[in-house]
Amino acid sequence: MGERRPLRAEIIAIGSELLTPYRVDTNSLWLTEQLNELGIVVRMKAIIGDDLETLVEHIRHALGRADVLIATGGLGPTEDDLTREAFAQALERPLYRDEDLLEQLRRRFQRYGLSMTPNNARQADVISGAHVLDNSVGSAPGLFIEEGTKLVFLLPGPPREMKPMFERHVRPRLAARSSGDRIVRRTLRVAGITESALDDRIAPVYTQYENPATTIISSLAGLEIHLTARARTTEEAERMLDELAVKLEERLGEHLVSRYGESVERVVGKQLTERRLTLAVAESCTGGLIAKRVTDIPGSSHYFVGGIVAYSNEAKVELLGVAEALIRRAGAVSPGVAEAMARGVRERLHADIGIGVTGIAGPSGGTPEKPVGLVYVGLDWKGDIRHKRFHIPGDRERVRELTTLLALDWVRRELLKGV
Amino acid sequence: MGERRPLRAEIIAIGSELLTPYRVDTNSLWLTEQLNELGIVVRMKAIIGDDLETLVEHIRHALGRADVLIATGGLGPTEDDLTREAFAQALERPLYRDEDLLEQLRRRFQRYGLSMTPNNARQADVISGAHVLDNSVGSAPGLFIEEGTKLVFLLPGPPREMKPMFERHVRPRLAARSSGDRIVRRTLRVAGITESALDDRIAPVYTQYENPATTIISSLAGLEIHLTARARTTEEAERMLDELAVKLEERLGEHLVSRYGESVERVVGKQLTERRLTLAVAESCTGGLIAKRVTDIPGSSHYFVGGIVAYSNEAKVELLGVAEALIRRAGAVSPGVAEAMARGVRERLHADIGIGVTGIAGPSGGTPEKPVGLVYVGLDWKGDIRHKRFHIPGDRERVRELTTLLALDWVRRELLKGV
Repeated sequence: MGERRPLRAEIIAIGSELLTPYRVDTNSLWLTEQLNELGIVVRMKAIIGDDLETLVEHIRHALGRADVLIATGGLGPTEDDLTREAFAQALERPLYRDEDLLEQLRRRFQRYGLSMTPNNARQADVISGAHVLDNSVGSAPGLFIEEGTKLVFLLPGPPREMKPMFERHVRPRLAARSSGDRIVRRTLRVAGITESALDDRIAPVYTQYENPATTIISSLAGLEIHLTARARTTEEAERMLDELAVKLEERLGEHLVSRYGESVERVVGKQLTERRLTLAVAESCTGGLIAKRVTDIPGSSHYFVGGIVAYSNEAKVELLGVAEALIRRAGAVSPGVAEAMARGVRERLHADIGIGVTGIAGPSGGTPEKPVGLVYVGLDWKGDIRHKRFHIPGDRERVRELTTLLALDWVRRELLKGV
Repeated sequence: MGERRPLRAEIIAIGSELLTPYRVDTNSLWLTEQLNELGIVVRMKAIIGDDLETLVEHIRHALGRADVLIATGGLGPTEDDLTREAFAQALERPLYRDEDLLEQLRRRFQRYGLSMTPNNARQADVISGAHVLDNSVGSAPGLFIEEGTKLVFLLPGPPREMKPMFERHVRPRLAARSSGDRIVRRTLRVAGITESALDDRIAPVYTQYENPATTIISSLAGLEIHLTARARTTEEAERMLDELAVKLEERLGEHLVSRYGESVERVVGKQLTERRLTLAVAESCTGGLIAKRVTDIPGSSHYFVGGIVAYSNEAKVELLGVAEALIRRAGAVSPGVAEAMARGVRERLHADIGIGVTGIAGPSGGTPEKPVGLVYVGLDWKGDIRHKRFHIPGDRERVRELTTLLALDWVRRELLKGV
């Protein structure tokens, strides 16, 4: 009996705007995730402009290699929109204007009080033998073509039109056809440890598993452990992920921020809500980023009282009650000032927990004693006041992002303790 | 006499990590900009995993179409790094191990106190007839191959290695060869006008020009007008951009935020520095985003005094001196509160200019009278206090981002007036 080979997919993003320095194709990231979950492997992604010759040639090559071909974009009403024509040529099938579809388009335009221009009628062009996929959001319908055993889907470019069309018309067709192993991914988010120390700690566990595969990714949002499991069913893949994840989590201890990729601000938000505690932040070098991050979460008004961005020394003294003498003696970037900021903001805003952050984000302002990247975080926990010192390498953006992560992660750990 | 045809380039990004849902190829955006400036057109970008068969096949097709082929990634020391092998097969040239290069690699490892593993020696493999491009930053050298009239460049994947190698080894070779029109781009940033009103206003001007071409792009950062000029020389293209830009700027009036794509926070920063004025912000619904944006700019400590994120009503009263009775009577989202916040933060932080922002970012908290997206911005300009009302459609992120843009843009316009 032959082994079942996973279906191979290729994605083609179509549109000259995607060949400028400004635009990146993000549809394919989402599509890749969906295809992988369905047990379909993505072998190649291509980005091609509104250029009929290149399109037709590439589509022919892709049809020779792939089992599933998904194109996004180029289905609109303008002359530049060549996707239907290119696929018709590559598949050697005629295009015809579908009268029912034309009528539907006309009615759609009427409904919005618009008159349909002749160009818009192009959206009623259908490749012979194709199934029309209706667009619940926009005007451009999609197309589905079976070419022998190969499946070809033409989807609109705007993500808000593409995604619902995939869910409704593509996923069920692919699920029925795919016999490949399901690929399920999980992200564990980690903080307060270097990439190499993290690897030392978890390598003895993950190297015992070829499946799920483990990758460590470092970004401005901190460290992520990506697990990728392949199995006959989604349930089996999830079980395999659970098995490895539990072992990794044991090794990670309090460094584990979240089991399913949630951001630290979301985790802290949940903890604060559960424990009915409130938070206030005083920021210098992060300049509002911590408050911004905390309030990214809907419902944060239930636990976030407010923040003070004390960029100048004057603001530290007047708004947070930091002693002028302390700033003069120890400098604005010092453990005492971080603690005084945490205390000042907690007391003035009547919060349970106060954070104070002061540091040198750069690019200028560093000295040999206090280099760029030196950061003090103060924490006032109902009057119990402490600080931590960090030295964060990198540019201004990195210093600010990682300071925010480390400060919120400290709060997360303290909340874990159930003090 | 034949018309000079611009050189056609294709870019191939190589690496299985680029075929996951997590990673996007950004190298090609930068490369596209450089190639266009050199008068070279990008016809296609492909993203391919560490899969020898697909790579060899695609490289052969690309060599058939393109004049210039640039590959990034897959030059590292691991078994997965197949770029050299794939190009050797596609070009039907042998690979050999270069002893000089091997010795250089060995010395590089010694310099960092590391021993070179056998795998690393793979980085000394060279395609027969290729020129080696040295890597000033990392260990993997690049390769340059002339195949008939076609130019093939293999560059490392990490941007910090790829970019200097391009500048040093690729740009001069392409500049010597390219006779195509130079393509130069410019971005005008615009605020305080809808996309359709903007188009109505500037279409009479830009439709008179086929070259430069004009595109309007709407994003969370506001509206951008992208101009793309083609000319025999960069200077000529710049002159053409200047001509159109001046006419557009006349039509835009005070809606023009910047002529060269600078962000509004950078423009406001320059204005404040020039006029030696200081700014303070009081934020409710934006939750620190305005302060964050202002302090993204290095040197902002010269004009940004600080900010107060008054998320709760209590914070508005205690930190900003907003009258409790006013909040009770008019609600926290009201013109009076926005003005009182602007005044409170300006006075308490002794700034020249104060901004106060209060609104409903959503997703919850809206009512028929005060729907999600309703925002009041208050401005206190040395005691002259006013407000504006906005209704911003969209989700929480969009409401917060556009509120920030509109608030900073108001300050920009007032600073323009030279009050």
